[in-house]
Amino acid sequence: VPLRLQIFTHVRGAGRAARADITRALGVSAGSVTPAVAELIAMGLLREVEEPARDPGRDGARGRPPVALEVVPGTRPVVGVKLGADRHTAVLTDLSGAMLAEAALPASAGRRPAARLLDETAALIDRLLAAAGRPACDLAGLGLGLAGLVDHHAGRVAWSPLLTEREVDLRAFAEARFGLPVQIDNDANLLTLAELWFGAGRATSDFVVVTIEQGVGMGLVLGGRLMRGTRGMGMELGHTKVALDGALCRCGRRGCLEAYVADYALAREAATALALDRPLPPAQALEALFAAARAGDGAAREIFDRARRYLALGLSNVVQIFDPALIILSGERMRYDYLCAEAVIAEMAALGLPQGRPPARVEVHAWGDLAWARGAAALALAAVTEALLG
Amino acid sequence: VPLRLQIFTHVRGAGRAARADITRALGVSAGSVTPAVAELIAMGLLREVEEPARDPGRDGARGRPPVALEVVPGTRPVVGVKLGADRHTAVLTDLSGAMLAEAALPASAGRRPAARLLDETAALIDRLLAAAGRPACDLAGLGLGLAGLVDHHAGRVAWSPLLTEREVDLRAFAEARFGLPVQIDNDANLLTLAELWFGAGRATSDFVVVTIEQGVGMGLVLGGRLMRGTRGMGMELGHTKVALDGALCRCGRRGCLEAYVADYALAREAATALALDRPLPPAQALEALFAAARAGDGAAREIFDRARRYLALGLSNVVQIFDPALIILSGERMRYDYLCAEAVIAEMAALGLPQGRPPARVEVHAWGDLAWARGAAALALAAVTEALLG
Repeated sequence: VPLRLQIFTHVRGAGRAARADITRALGVSAGSVTPAVAELIAMGLLREVEEPARDPGRDGARGRPPVALEVVPGTRPVVGVKLGADRHTAVLTDLSGAMLAEAALPASAGRRPAARLLDETAALIDRLLAAAGRPACDLAGLGLGLAGLVDHHAGRVAWSPLLTEREVDLRAFAEARFGLPVQIDNDANLLTLAELWFGAGRATSDFVVVTIEQGVGMGLVLGGRLMRGTRGMGMELGHTKVALDGALCRCGRRGCLEAYVADYALAREAATALALDRPLPPAQALEALFAAARAGDGAAREIFDRARRYLALGLSNVVQIFDPALIILSGERMRYDYLCAEAVIAEMAALGLPQGRPPARVEVHAWGDLAWARGAAALALAAVTEALLG
Repeated sequence: VPLRLQIFTHVRGAGRAARADITRALGVSAGSVTPAVAELIAMGLLREVEEPARDPGRDGARGRPPVALEVVPGTRPVVGVKLGADRHTAVLTDLSGAMLAEAALPASAGRRPAARLLDETAALIDRLLAAAGRPACDLAGLGLGLAGLVDHHAGRVAWSPLLTEREVDLRAFAEARFGLPVQIDNDANLLTLAELWFGAGRATSDFVVVTIEQGVGMGLVLGGRLMRGTRGMGMELGHTKVALDGALCRCGRRGCLEAYVADYALAREAATALALDRPLPPAQALEALFAAARAGDGAAREIFDRARRYLALGLSNVVQIFDPALIILSGERMRYDYLCAEAVIAEMAALGLPQGRPPARVEVHAWGDLAWARGAAALALAAVTEALLG
């Protein structure tokens, strides 16, 4: 890794850093830091700021105030977009990751061709740039995230619930459409990147993020790096099998974890549990089921209980395989108490190996859509930084 | 990584290498390689050998023959021990990994205190040294592998089917007993190390090893490194849950993969399937069951069929999580056709996500106990090399 990229990454992560801090943190000589910093300043990426003395009483108030470095605010903005089933969300951030603007648009229903999905993306970016008052030609990159089987390295979407086509070269399509460097990834990796750049990653370098929404996703960070499986995919926790010949999953197989805990899995049992004459649309079915459970309906309660137990089983499998120190449960779903996070955590501990290690710490981070979009921005930022300085 | 360790590792891996090959492979200057090689020769670790000209016709037969480097045969021998339920196996290898001798002893039955297990280990090492005609004082290190929850980094065994105690500081006990640096690990990691050093690892740097014996184990190699889970344990594929409230596992929980595919899981259904008046010991029960299945007994066949389907399910979960390019099925069990590897592989492919990536390649490596012991030796070799040159 070139020294100038190391220096930029250190300053970005620290917010502000003096040259002496950089020299110490990277274990390099002051003589090598000085020209690299000068280059970063000349590129318009870093600037000097006067650091308010942390303890003015000690050194006295006299003398030259210490000088720190920070990322130039507003420079090289990127767009992060989370494409969702119900709505699309976007953020504009500068190269430090600071948010400059945000925007959202309702998504069109059902699957659509990739070209239509990019039309929706274009409308969202227009709205975002208008909110920020910046022209499109300012943009340095675009990060796009969506649910499905996404091969980040190849830039291909093998399958997504948002797309009619399979095996779409979405990165190439989007680059041609927007005239920008584009990065794509699945939505669970976005949320994991958001944690790595702006959340748990500031304190720990090894953790697992499990996302529960329309489906069940997973992201893994080891040694401060997002792991994507040995062939750029993998981490498909939602399609690990928790029963032989089990419930039908929308992927076409049976017994997937998703087929027990995702929204559609719960919703499809609603008509039976509530003895409805005809099925409700999934969102309404889930609401009705939840209301019935809260009112004490036994069949409705059992649906949520079972989902909770299967989710605990899936999480305990993550513990058996990775033995992580921290598991983050994330996604919109965790805002509601459908699955009752505390009960899930207790059940998960009861499924773990009785011997040995202390249980993994579990945190619930109920971020909204913006966190996913910020993760998409982090994806773009990493690529832009690498292209500028790598 | 110090240059001398990089050079040693390269020569060891290549078998023989000329100075020019080393310079090229490591991307360093010839001027830095020369003194480091001199140091390795002075330490008695490398020696010069005349390389027979590969294409004598081209350069002519005249001139000085090219000189290559190799690891000095027989230097710094280490012992690798696999402690098993039925027997213990050991190999003596030199620092190049070449086998100098092997030995085996029957294991005492059931669980025993750690001190007794080390008595058995001592008897095995005596036999091994006698076979090699070398004194104990020659030894540079010992690698010990056994089934159970083994924390390699801490040197502790949380639980093992071979031990009466829990939370045993086995590394420290063994170091005190043998006066040698000791490394410990679980048996699946040993077999994975054996693949990494002497098998598949020579051709590929990312693969998964699944071991099927008394239990079900797993080892993961990413980027040429054995991954041990974020807290030094993990990779407990045998204790991932494949059914909620499922079959009882010997770990005390229900629904573990092992509880459907391990020897004991099959054996315990034998009395029912074969309508025996009283149960047979596990090994006999398994033999009887297998004989009955081959003779066409429906109940016996179904036991193996179910085990095979659950094994396929567990492997398909490995694919969903890691998306490996290569899965190696290993262990004694794969020598027999109990589980019929080809049927497992077909079933596994049928459980994968229907979209996207090509199926993982699956290879069956039916190594015997010696491979596990060689893996234990690799564990010791890595530590000895690191201590000498790191």
